[in-house]
Amino acid sequence: MEKLFQIIEEPISIEKTVGLVSRRDAGAINTFIGTVREFTKGKRTLYLEYQAYQSMAEAKLAEIGNEIIDQWPDSKVAITHRVGRLDIEDIAVVIAISTPHRADSYEASRYAIERTKEIVPIWKKEHWEDGEEWIGNQTETKSFVSGKPEEGDMC
Amino acid sequence: MEKLFQIIEEPISIEKTVGLVSRRDAGAINTFIGTVREFTKGKRTLYLEYQAYQSMAEAKLAEIGNEIIDQWPDSKVAITHRVGRLDIEDIAVVIAISTPHRADSYEASRYAIERTKEIVPIWKKEHWEDGEEWIGNQTETKSFVSGKPEEGDMC
Repeated sequence: MEKLFQIIEEPISIEKTVGLVSRRDAGAINTFIGTVREFTKGKRTLYLEYQAYQSMAEAKLAEIGNEIIDQWPDSKVAITHRVGRLDIEDIAVVIAISTPHRADSYEASRYAIERTKEIVPIWKKEHWEDGEEWIGNQTETKSFVSGKPEEGDMC
Repeated sequence: MEKLFQIIEEPISIEKTVGLVSRRDAGAINTFIGTVREFTKGKRTLYLEYQAYQSMAEAKLAEIGNEIIDQWPDSKVAITHRVGRLDIEDIAVVIAISTPHRADSYEASRYAIERTKEIVPIWKKEHWEDGEEWIGNQTETKSFVSGKPEEGDMC
């Protein structure tokens, strides 16, 4: 059986991730797909590189899954994150959450992507048109000035 | 080129619907998948039948697409709805919306499914364990007593 929380190097299959949560008592599956965007505030990204310590990152994804079950007990959650080199428009993450009714699937999905960005240690190297830069982990970089998250080149 | 707003009889390909909105300037694709749920308030559904006047239903889906572009100008929208006989767990509808940033993809997607249920004329016959019933169109049936939507057997 496929794992519900996975870090993989190959392209992510949306159907496969959705298939992990599809079930007879669900009426809704919200699926969030994060892709690599070309332009961020006028700056062009050429490609990204993600790296993770796989078992730790998968454990963190599973932790998010548990948080979701605590809040939405009727849900089933799967999260697949890709690492390695990703080109523009490639899929970096797929989050699929099935629930009996749609409102919960949206809320739980939104929670899942925010938490993924907050706590999952996946390191990202940005290859811009004019240089490159390691962005610590993929969590949205906090600006030291404003304390607000800065924009990354994915969702 | 595939149509962005489609009524089809075959099983819906999630990847294909997502592919219609994937693009270099998107970082997020929210995908809502409505599936046929087995139990609704303890009542068992065996299968459903959807019928639509295809061109009219597709025009209504396109109208929802326009409403979304008005509110979220950076989005791209595709909606595929299946008709015919659907068994438990089958996918009835896939809504895919790409946006540069994730918040908009969630909001626009939520709007899209609500509007789909409100205005798209797709007729549904419920085959329950103990009988069958045509449910007008697939919009959530209004209760004459409370005026509130009743639950259907999909999302």
